[in-house]
This record gives sequence, C-alpha cells and structure tokens, in this order.
Amino acid sequence: MASSRPLALVAGAGRLPELVAASLERAGRPFRVLAVRGFTERAMRARADATVDLLDIPGTLRILKDWAPDAVVPAGGVARPSPAALLNAAHAVKNRDILRGLAGGDDRLLRAVLSLLEENGHRVLGVHEVAPDLLGRPGRFGTHAPDSDAALSIATGRAMLGALSPFDVGQAAVVAAERVIAVEGPEGTDRMLLRARALGRKPFGYGSAPKGTVLVKLPKLGQDLRIDLPAIGPRTVQRAAAAGCAGIAIGAGYTLVIDVDRTVAAADAAGLFLVGLEVAP
Amino acid sequence: MASSRPLALVAGAGRLPELVAASLERAGRPFRVLAVRGFTERAMRARADATVDLLDIPGTLRILKDWAPDAVVPAGGVARPSPAALLNAAHAVKNRDILRGLAGGDDRLLRAVLSLLEENGHRVLGVHEVAPDLLGRPGRFGTHAPDSDAALSIATGRAMLGALSPFDVGQAAVVAAERVIAVEGPEGTDRMLLRARALGRKPFGYGSAPKGTVLVKLPKLGQDLRIDLPAIGPRTVQRAAAAGCAGIAIGAGYTLVIDVDRTVAAADAAGLFLVGLEVAP
Repeated sequence: MASSRPLALVAGAGRLPELVAASLERAGRPFRVLAVRGFTERAMRARADATVDLLDIPGTLRILKDWAPDAVVPAGGVARPSPAALLNAAHAVKNRDILRGLAGGDDRLLRAVLSLLEENGHRVLGVHEVAPDLLGRPGRFGTHAPDSDAALSIATGRAMLGALSPFDVGQAAVVAAERVIAVEGPEGTDRMLLRARALGRKPFGYGSAPKGTVLVKLPKLGQDLRIDLPAIGPRTVQRAAAAGCAGIAIGAGYTLVIDVDRTVAAADAAGLFLVGLEVAP
Repeated sequence: MASSRPLALVAGAGRLPELVAASLERAGRPFRVLAVRGFTERAMRARADATVDLLDIPGTLRILKDWAPDAVVPAGGVARPSPAALLNAAHAVKNRDILRGLAGGDDRLLRAVLSLLEENGHRVLGVHEVAPDLLGRPGRFGTHAPDSDAALSIATGRAMLGALSPFDVGQAAVVAAERVIAVEGPEGTDRMLLRARALGRKPFGYGSAPKGTVLVKLPKLGQDLRIDLPAIGPRTVQRAAAAGCAGIAIGAGYTLVIDVDRTVAAADAAGLFLVGLEVAP
C-alpha cells in the first residue's frame, strides 16, 4: 500500500520543513527527513534520517532508492545557496542541467533536480499537496477588513499579476488604488516591500504610502507549486506595515501562511487586513 | 499666423529644456522661456523671460495670456519637487486637482496643470512634437549590435511591457532571455538598474548579470508623451553597463536620447548596443 510507505521530506532552509513535519504528524502520515548540508535548520537537522550535500545527486538517489518513499516532498529554499554551499556543491556536480540551473538561480535549480528525481521513478509532491492545512483559506483572517480603496488596489493587483503571469517575473505587487508601486522581481517580496517603503518616504509621498495600499501576492498561471509556493509570515506582515500597506491579499489555497497564528496576530496588532482571494491558477 | 507666435517653453529640471531650446533655435522657431523657481537649471534661468513659483497658477496664466504663445511646451521634470519647492508651492495652491496631483506625485501633478492650461485655451505640445530631432530613431546606434540572447531579451521585454501597458506602472524592464530581472516602478529607470546590479551580485548570479541582459524602455499604450516622454542619456548607459546589461532597446520616435553623441559614445566605450525599436503606442 502506497500510504504505508513514508514520504521523503527534503528539508531545505527556513521553518517550512518543521511546519510540514508537524502537519504530517498531525495527519499521522509517515515520513523520513533528508537534510541538505548548509540549508537545513538545526531543528530539522536534529531529526534528519540522512544528510546530503546540495546537488550530491548520486548520494541522494542512493538514499531515496533505499527509502523507496511514497513520494519526495521538497520543502524550504535551496534556490539561493550560500557561497559556502555553492563551493561544497560545485565539485560534486556532474549534471549539466543542474549546473545551468545553479547558474540560473531561483527555481531553475530545483526544477532541474525535480525532473532528475522523476526520471529516476520518484513521485514528487508539493507541500500544498501533503500539508494543505498550512495554506491560506479563502476570506478574511483576523479582525480587519479591506475598505473600498483597498478593494480597488486588490482588483488592480489581480489584473496586473494576471497580465504578468505568462512571464518569468515576480508573483507579488504593492498597489495603491490603480497605481502599481512595485512589482516583485527575483529580489523577493521582502525586498520589494522595503522598496515600497522607501518610495513612501519621498517628499511627494508626504512620508507615507497612499491610502488603501495593498500587498497582493498570487500564484502564477501554471506555476509549479512544488517548486515555488507563494508564502507569507509574520515578517511579511511587519514589512508590509512598514511599507504603509493597509493589508495583504493572498491566493487562497495556493499560499503558505507560515505560523498562521503569529501572522494573524501581527496583522491584527498592526491594523492590517489579511484576506485569501479565490484564485484558479 | 500661428507660426509667427512664439512657443512658451516651461523649463523644468534637468538639461532637457536647454536641449529643446537649442533644437528650436536650429529650427528657427521663436520661443520664450518660463522658468519654474526651484526646478529650472542655471543655464535656462539665465535666459528666462519670466519666472514663476511651482503651482502659481494665477501668475502662470497671467504671463501666458500676455505672451499669447502658439503653444505651451513643458520640458524637464517637476514631478518630484524638492521639499523646499513643495513648501514654497503649498501656500500658493488654490486648485484641488493640483493639490491631489501634488500628493499623488509622478505625472499626476503635471497632468492636472496641463488640463488647467487647456481649460484656459492654451494648446500644450510635447517635446517630441516640437523637437523631434531629440528622439531616438529606429535601428542601431553606435558600433555594437544585439546578439541572439539579447534579441530574445528584447522580445520578452516588448511582450511583457505590452502586457503591463494598461496598468499605471513603469515603462522599462531589465530582461535576461525569458527572465524578467526587474520591472520599473515609480523609482525610475536609474534606481531599477541599481536593483538589477545588486541582483547580479548575488552568489547564484556568479557576480554578474546573465548573458544577453537588456534594458528595454518603451512608451506605454496611450501614454501622454507631453507629460512623460521616456528618456535615456549617458548616465542610463553607465547604469545599464554597471548592471551587466549587454545593451539598451528604446522605442524609436518615442524616447528622448539626451546628448545623443555622448550617449552613443558611452555605449560604444562600454561595449553596449543601443537600438531603437519600431513601436506604435
């Protein structure tokens, strides 16, 4: 029975692997943890069943063959390796696609690794598939709700991100009514919010973002959510508040809300709304 | 005869008013210079026929009524007033639209002023209409040409900026093949290029932008070029080179090339191509 076989949780950077592990335990789903040297955080390293070097493909395949998992679940970033990790990895790399992926940065690396896993007969599932309880649900979180200004910002953001969807560019924007303040690029949501914050400080901005400014964060059309699942957390809320946002709109069912309780508490405390939008990417 | 009546050149910040004045002189077209206190550069202040405070609408209208110009030509930025200029202006402001425009920043201010001028029976012409010799022409400038990587970047940038055109967002992007590195927001092209440069320095970028990275700068569909004419100059070339760009693509006939000789020389020296694309906004 497939369900009796464990999942192989490949634990990248950040708190996500820990949250996924907790979710799998709640669901009573067996799993093993494969740590990635230089990425996996202490909490998960402590419970790792095995550890590999980033891009040690042969080693990883040997371990997975031994585990014969029901599916492999990558969780947590490896897309932006530390210089140290890159050096560790470089000599181990044989695969041309991987090298190109490494040079390409962002999700190309993971994409190349995933196809390699699938070529070797492994099923690869995303966090959204094995731990759906970690995803934002539709509707309002917390106590605050969008006003009409914010609603216009959300509509503009949805339309613009939809228009951008065919292109390999960010999946988030800061929008004020019909005006787009910032579009996310490879720098990520946090840096985009710092940019929006700086713009709010320009003299003509009178030291604050326009009323009803919203962070809109949605999945891209046809995006492989196993590789790149949009995520927000308490830090996102703090950065959005610092940027003068009235609230945050995410794609319900397609966006991780890391530490949902702390995230909602942070939004309530900062006076920000947090809403999940019905989306169908 | 309309042609015997002078143009009223409203000289904002930067070198553009000077370049427009020179172009009008070459064309033998009579004009008067209206300086804007706090914005007009020394060279133009020296030859100003009159000077007004930013947003001194009554004073401006009095002067223009007296001059009875063939058309009013705004040249040079006033969209991002210095704090000092804002303070000077604030007390002089009566008009609600202007105040909103001022608060809105960017082109809203100028748009509000322009409609006010038109309401008062003045024709407003753009720099592209009175000094077309300042605009980039189609085809290649300088000695370098785009390779196939850069050609793909240009095609991606054109398509993406086209998709963004209906939205109030930047009109430029940094593109590497099919990957969008940065989309311009209110921060402007120079700051976007600094961002792209920083991204090129991330470890996964191996300290440089991907091969064939291009700055693509195009007018928006239906953009009022009298208010917001895309522009590049020597500094744009330097910033693009620092960001690792292989070249720059602009919308021919819709983009100012400030100091074309120095701009092309800078591109040649930096090994960047500079091409004008056929566009129809």
